Amino acid sequence: MKQATCVHFAGTHQCAARQKPLPAGNLCTGMSDNLHQLRCFGCGARIKGAEARPDFRCALCGDLFEVEYPGWSERRGHDRPNPGALKWLWRERRCSSEALDSSGVWRFRELLPILDNFGSALTLFEGNTPLYHLTRAAKALGIDQLFAKHQGMNPTGSFKDTGMTAAISVAKERGFGWVACASTGNTSASMAAYAARAGLRSLVLIPDGKIAWGKLSQAMDYGAVTCQLKADFDGCLRLLTQIVNEAPIYLLNSVNPYRLEGQKTPAFEIAEAFDWIVPDHLIVPGGNLGNSSALGKGFRELHELGLVARMPRISVIQAAGANPLVRSLAENDGTALEPVEAHTRATAIRIGNPASWRKAARAIQESGGWCLDVTEAEIAMAKAELGAEGLGCEPASAVTLAGLKKLRARGAVDSGETVVLVLTGHTLKDADYTIDFHRGTLLNAEETAGVEAEIEALRRNARVVDATPAAVLATLKDRVG
Amino acid sequence: MKQATCVHFAGTHQCAARQKPLPAGNLCTGMSDNLHQLRCFGCGARIKGAEARPDFRCALCGDLFEVEYPGWSERRGHDRPNPGALKWLWRERRCSSEALDSSGVWRFRELLPILDNFGSALTLFEGNTPLYHLTRAAKALGIDQLFAKHQGMNPTGSFKDTGMTAAISVAKERGFGWVACASTGNTSASMAAYAARAGLRSLVLIPDGKIAWGKLSQAMDYGAVTCQLKADFDGCLRLLTQIVNEAPIYLLNSVNPYRLEGQKTPAFEIAEAFDWIVPDHLIVPGGNLGNSSALGKGFRELHELGLVARMPRISVIQAAGANPLVRSLAENDGTALEPVEAHTRATAIRIGNPASWRKAARAIQESGGWCLDVTEAEIAMAKAELGAEGLGCEPASAVTLAGLKKLRARGAVDSGETVVLVLTGHTLKDADYTIDFHRGTLLNAEETAGVEAEIEALRRNARVVDATPAAVLATLKDRVG
Repeated sequence: MKQATCVHFAGTHQCAARQKPLPAGNLCTGMSDNLHQLRCFGCGARIKGAEARPDFRCALCGDLFEVEYPGWSERRGHDRPNPGALKWLWRERRCSSEALDSSGVWRFRELLPILDNFGSALTLFEGNTPLYHLTRAAKALGIDQLFAKHQGMNPTGSFKDTGMTAAISVAKERGFGWVACASTGNTSASMAAYAARAGLRSLVLIPDGKIAWGKLSQAMDYGAVTCQLKADFDGCLRLLTQIVNEAPIYLLNSVNPYRLEGQKTPAFEIAEAFDWIVPDHLIVPGGNLGNSSALGKGFRELHELGLVARMPRISVIQAAGANPLVRSLAENDGTALEPVEAHTRATAIRIGNPASWRKAARAIQESGGWCLDVTEAEIAMAKAELGAEGLGCEPASAVTLAGLKKLRARGAVDSGETVVLVLTGHTLKDADYTIDFHRGTLLNAEETAGVEAEIEALRRNARVVDATPAAVLATLKDRVG
Repeated sequence: MKQATCVHFAGTHQCAARQKPLPAGNLCTGMSDNLHQLRCFGCGARIKGAEARPDFRCALCGDLFEVEYPGWSERRGHDRPNPGALKWLWRERRCSSEALDSSGVWRFRELLPILDNFGSALTLFEGNTPLYHLTRAAKALGIDQLFAKHQGMNPTGSFKDTGMTAAISVAKERGFGWVACASTGNTSASMAAYAARAGLRSLVLIPDGKIAWGKLSQAMDYGAVTCQLKADFDGCLRLLTQIVNEAPIYLLNSVNPYRLEGQKTPAFEIAEAFDWIVPDHLIVPGGNLGNSSALGKGFRELHELGLVARMPRISVIQAAGANPLVRSLAENDGTALEPVEAHTRATAIRIGNPASWRKAARAIQESGGWCLDVTEAEIAMAKAELGAEGLGCEPASAVTLAGLKKLRARGAVDSGETVVLVLTGHTLKDADYTIDFHRGTLLNAEETAGVEAEIEALRRNARVVDATPAAVLATLKDRVG
């Protein structure tokens, strides 16, 4: 376990002579690493990070904030990172044993200077997730280069960890003792784990009634306090807003802009994996839309700072039963969003009123991406196809492959393109979905109409077989065809 | 995605002049990377890898084989790796984008030359798992340095992946189209994922009757064919032995010695993390005992090759209801093992007749470690304590902390020692256990006798609370105090 050493590199200033924070983070003492401010995504108002209201809504217009770094826009400013030096530094850190360097988020800390001191950063060694080459799906789709960036390989099993490490570090640095969210799924699991690691207490609010205990197991495991309220999900969120305005509890729902700062870092990992020549097309599941927003911000910043030559096309795929952004873009070009009542078995994207829809619409539109939806059967088949390549994922992740199939069928994706699917959750996050699919109890007849044979070919239900070698071998012959 | 380039380094021979494989693996063509043979752990008979029977039992005495590398024992032989060069090479590979270098198993491929060509190696980017500093547990136990090496952070959520990448690569190189195991748990999940990745078909045999579907979800997801047999687990294993003797199906139960070769690599990761000064004490859960055997082999080889100065003490902890090795060591110094009927909720170590007990006994005895057992309540409390530090794990992993507490109470672990707990599975592997514990339905009164208060302090059941800020805040005050 080595300590960090002070890193100097060509193209940036020397430690002794400098007035502003080093890009290398907390490697020199006595100065702030913090370079950020908050800008309202609605009215453009700018405030200091510490001035945000506890509910993270703009006091002027009520919209969400986005983190920005004013120093980056000065072409020759001290705060503007040097692209070549950063690429070298980030690569070298992969060989480092220092804790922050081992995090796939904080390894890129020069591009998330949100803390006064990076020494406050708290990590469970998130990020550094695998990028898998999908050879069979690529062949089936007639695409040269298809990859899956598996964010479900994060410590708590979902992409939320990359954002939570950032936001919990801010909470800890600002002296909070409690953090909270309204969530029954991946957010509460991630929050509870990072809070526990940071020595903070965590509160989870959930609607009373039909509790999916499986979804809560991680929050319990990591020691969160869970309150069931006689309220629906929006009611829980409203109550939590009241609570954080009354008590020193740090809000970690996705309105928190620091979560998106962490969630942008997979863009850096992807760009680095392709040696800073970004892939043509990135396909992301669309639920609350924080992830597509964050990845868009990540690639935008890489482009603005000169680390990459362009942004990839960013497409967002929703479930047909939870497609408010698809509708918004089709009906009014993304200028307004009408909430829908959400229905899909892909619970991680079962969201009818997404918080980050404006940011996601911007990422899609500026990158030339698409937004479309896929059916329950398409999701289930895509998940089984990913599984058959050895990649488990939660159902929401599989919308990416289902969406790619549709885009390819429409001629929107060229055979020569390099495409990256962003998988967001681990298969163990929803074992019941997998079991129900393979046992044939997941989808109803209406949903499978027209694709019965394809689904049957993908199902792998357990068979009762006589306990003889001949009977077992006959089963295999049968299966092979 | 870069290709590997030929690496030369001081201290080893040049490519052109050499007759034997380079330590750097498949970096030069036309020569075999394969340096291994198999040695029977019982009678010492030696055979070539390709000569092993399909059931991997010694034809002379029926015992298990162990992989060995005869070239390593020649002090100045061509095949004996150079310690300094290896440390440098392994570290450099952490910065490489080449697939095998990104694997925490194949990064160390010079120490597992089991393939004719490392180009056959197949990876899901296993290994490179986090090593967490456990500050609160260390303080509670009065130990300076306590760490957890979390093997549950592997792709399918268990330590089995490090072994499966090795054994499936062998299966693929030897031309098998099918692989198989008898397992309802982590082994089948891992096998199915790697087989899918390799383009092989996989077969899982399980006893008919009370199927725990949750345990099978991953095997189904990755496309395995599952057969339920009217037989118990040992019956399934016997039948599978018959099947592999009749048909070209590669056996992947833990009798396969190549699995242990992959599973030894976390020893290299741990040694590297401590800058090649090994920790004092490694504590490992004991079920089928392949993991403790493999880690022992890993540290032994590091020591024999001069990469580290000594082996760590290796202790193995079993559940009290599944403790055949504890009994064997107490009753006959590990010379014979009497199978027991296994009972524990920690399903991953619910094994009464462990395959690798001789190898594990050797690792414990040669390293000066201990073997002891812990109760169901001790396991549950230790799991909750690890959770409260932000580390989820499956119940079997928690025996390590429970065991350390006992060892510390006995004075067997000094306050100045550096201790590493090996966590073997992800918390999502057994969400039901977590839920049952926190809802108070896991343990019965007999099991909790005397520790009711400690357990109550660790439980985090969801509470029904009025939907007002005051009611929620009152709950938090209640919890804190």
